[in-house]
Amino acid sequence: MATLGFVEYADAGPEVRAVYDDIMTVRNTDWINNFWKVLANHPATLRRTWESVKQIMAPGALDPLTKEMIYLAVSATNQCPYCIASHTVSARKAGMTDEMLAELLAVVGMANETNRLSSGYQVEIDEPFRIGA
Amino acid sequence: MATLGFVEYADAGPEVRAVYDDIMTVRNTDWINNFWKVLANHPATLRRTWESVKQIMAPGALDPLTKEMIYLAVSATNQCPYCIASHTVSARKAGMTDEMLAELLAVVGMANETNRLSSGYQVEIDEPFRIGA
Amino acid sequence: MATLGFVEYADAGPEVRAVYDDIMTVRNTDWINNFWKVLANHPATLRRTWESVKQIMAPGALDPLTKEMIYLAVSATNQCPYCIASHTVSARKAGMTDEMLAELLAVVGMANETNRLSSGYQVEIDEPFRIGA
Amino acid sequence: MATLGFVEYADAGPEVRAVYDDIMTVRNTDWINNFWKVLANHPATLRRTWESVKQIMAPGALDPLTKEMIYLAVSATNQCPYCIASHTVSARKAGMTDEMLAELLAVVGMANETNRLSSGYQVEIDEPFRIGA
Amino acid sequence: MATLGFVEYADAGPEVRAVYDDIMTVRNTDWINNFWKVLANHPATLRRTWESVKQIMAPGALDPLTKEMIYLAVSATNQCPYCIASHTVSARKAGMTDEMLAELLAVVGMANETNRLSSGYQVEIDEPFRIGA
Amino acid sequence: MATLGFVEYADAGPEVRAVYDDIMTVRNTDWINNFWKVLANHPATLRRTWESVKQIMAPGALDPLTKEMIYLAVSATNQCPYCIASHTVSARKAGMTDEMLAELLAVVGMANETNRLSSGYQVEIDEPFRIGA
Repeated sequence: MATLGFVEYADAGPEVRAVYDDIMTVRNTDWINNFWKVLANHPATLRRTWESVKQIMAPGALDPLTKEMIYLAVSATNQCPYCIASHTVSARKAGMTDEMLAELLAVVGMANETNRLSSGYQVEIDEPFRIGA
Repeated sequence: MATLGFVEYADAGPEVRAVYDDIMTVRNTDWINNFWKVLANHPATLRRTWESVKQIMAPGALDPLTKEMIYLAVSATNQCPYCIASHTVSARKAGMTDEMLAELLAVVGMANETNRLSSGYQVEIDEPFRIGA
Repeated sequence: MATLGFVEYADAGPEVRAVYDDIMTVRNTDWINNFWKVLANHPATLRRTWESVKQIMAPGALDPLTKEMIYLAVSATNQCPYCIASHTVSARKAGMTDEMLAELLAVVGMANETNRLSSGYQVEIDEPFRIGA
Repeated sequence: MATLGFVEYADAGPEVRAVYDDIMTVRNTDWINNFWKVLANHPATLRRTWESVKQIMAPGALDPLTKEMIYLAVSATNQCPYCIASHTVSARKAGMTDEMLAELLAVVGMANETNRLSSGYQVEIDEPFRIGA
Repeated sequence: MATLGFVEYADAGPEVRAVYDDIMTVRNTDWINNFWKVLANHPATLRRTWESVKQIMAPGALDPLTKEMIYLAVSATNQCPYCIASHTVSARKAGMTDEMLAELLAVVGMANETNRLSSGYQVEIDEPFRIGA
Repeated sequence: MATLGFVEYADAGPEVRAVYDDIMTVRNTDWINNFWKVLANHPATLRRTWESVKQIMAPGALDPLTKEMIYLAVSATNQCPYCIASHTVSARKAGMTDEMLAELLAVVGMANETNRLSSGYQVEIDEPFRIGA
C-alpha cells in the first residue's frame, strides 16, 4: 500500500469524485488506477496533475500515440517501474505495436549511450548547433 | 577542445575516413560534427557507434521524425547540452515544427514530474499493469 | 538478502559494535536498520558514513525536520526505493505530517518538470542570476 | 539565445501579457526572467506552468523558504545549471543564509551518496519501513 | 515476465540461435540470462547489443575485471536493479572480492556526493582542468 | 565565481589552512583547486569531505588508478562538467592513457544503454542473480 493509502471512489469527497468522473469519461473506462487514488489524498495535487496531463496529452501538433511513446521513453530513461508499467499499457492502447516498442527502446538506449559519450569526452557544441550563432 | 581533440578528415587514416564518408553519404552532407571527430580518436568506437546509430535511426516501424523526437526527449531528460543542441537541429531537419517541439517538451516535463510523484508516494503497480498477471 | 549479507550485533566485532551502540544512542532506539548492517561488512565505510550522517543531520542552521525533508526530496528525485521508504519514516518521526509530505512531493515533482523545461529549451541564465555579474 | 527565442512584453499578445502581469504582481517585481520568456512561445505551457508553480509554491503546511530549499535540493541533484542559479537567488530572497545553503548542500550530497550505497549493496527494505506491513 | 516475454532457445529462429550460441561460447556457459531472452524478441537489437558488448568488454587497454567494475559502478549510479544484480555476479566471476566491491561502492558513493557539491555550489572549472588552456 | 566565492589560503583561518596543507601534502602539490576553495566557506564540510576522499581514494584492495577511473565513470554518467574535467586530469596523473580513457567511456556508454534496455523491457532478475536464492 502506498505511503498515504488509496482513496476509493466510495470514500471520496465531491472534489475527488469530480476528478475521478472526468478521468473515467476522458479515458472511456470505469477504472481508476493507483496513481490517481494516491494523489487523491491531496485533492489540490490530484486536480492540478490531472488537468495538466489532460491538457498535455490531448491531440495537438503531436498525435496521442507519439505523446505516449515520448512519455514511455522518459520513464525508461528515469527507470521508474510504475511509470514504465502503466505507460507501456497506455501506449499499446494508443496503437504501439511490439515492433514499435522495440524500436523505441533501441533509440532510448542509444541516446543514453551517446549522451554519456559526448559529456564524457567533453565535446564542444559545434557552431551550427549553437542557437543564434 | 574536447578531451582528446578532433580528428579532421585530412589527418584521418583510412578506417576513420571510411566512416566519415559513410556519415556524409547517409546524411547527404559534406560536414562532420564534433561528436564523430572526437570518437575518431578510437576508431573502433567510431565505427561501432556509427553503425549502431545508422541501424537504429533508419526508417522502420517508427519514422525518422518520431525517432529524432524520442532521442531529443531522452537528451532533455538527461540534460545533456551537446545532445539537446544537436538533436534539436536534426529533429527540425526531419520535420519537427516549433509547435511540435513545445508539445514534446511539455510531455517530457510532465513525465519527469509524475515519475517522481509515483516513486515518491511509493505507488504499487496495479494488477492490470503487471505483465503476465 | 543484500549482496554481502547483514552483520548482526551478536556477530559483530568491537569496531562495528561501537558504531551500532552510537547509532542506537543518538537515535534513542534499540534497533539497527538493514542499511547499517550491510555497511558493517566494511567497518571503515560503516564508521565514516555514520560519522558523516551524524554530523550533517544534527541541528544547525537548519532544523532536523527540514534536513529530513531535503533528504527525502533527493531520494524521491533519484527514485531510490530503500531511501524513500526509510526517510519517509524518519521524516515523520521528525514531525512531517501527511499534508507536509504532499506539499514536499508537489515541489519535487514541479522542480523535476521545470528542470527539464529549462534544459530542453536551452534557456540562458539571466545576468541577475549569474554569480559575480 | 534559447531554442525558440524570448518573447518580450512589448511583443507579447494579451494571453502572455496576462501571465507576465500576474508573475510580476505575485513576485512584487517588474522583471520577467528568461525561463518564462521562453515558455511564452507556447502560451498554453506558459499559463499552465505558472499556475502550477504559483499554487505549489504558495505558503501552506510548508513555508515558502522550505519550499524554495527543496526546489534547490532537487535542482542540485539533477545538476540543472539554470535552475540552480535561479533558485539559489530565490531561496536567498526567501531568507536562506550562507550557512543554511551549506547545510542544505551537505544533506543533498550525503543523500546522493547513501542512495547509491543502498542500491549498490542491494539492501532490502526493513519490515518497519514497509507500508502496511 | 518481461514486457514481450522470453524467447527460449527451443523456440528461437536461426538468427537468434546463432547469437545465443555465440554468447554461450564466449562466456563458456550453457545458460542464457533473461536480458538476452527479452532482446531476442527483436533480433536486430539482440545481435547489435551482443556484438557491442562483446567488443567493448573484451580485454584491451583495460582488463576484464576493471571493465566489469566500471559497468557495476555505472549501474549503481543509475540504480538499475537488474544490472546491479547481474553485474555484481559477473564482476565476481572476473575476480572482484568482497573488499574490492566495498571499495568500489565507496568510490561510487563519494563521486555521487561530490558531483552534487560541485554542481550545487556552481564551482567554476579551474584553468588547469580546462582542455587546451 | 561560485555561489559563495573562493577562500584563498591567505584569507583562510587555521582550520581551513590545516586542511589545505594536508591536501597539498597528500597530493604533493602547491595548488588548491576551486572545489576545495568553495567548500572552505563551510569548514566542517571542507574537513569532512577531504577526510572522506582521502580515506576512500587511498590504495587498498583497489589501486588508485582503478579508483580514479571509477570516479570518472560515475561523473560521466551523471554528466557533471566540473567533475569530468577534474577527474580526467587526476586519472591521467594516476596513469590513465588515451586508450584506457576510450575504453572506459565505451563501457560507460554501453552500461547506460543496457541499464535502460533492461528497465524499459521490465526484465525480471534471473534466479541465479538473486542474492540468497
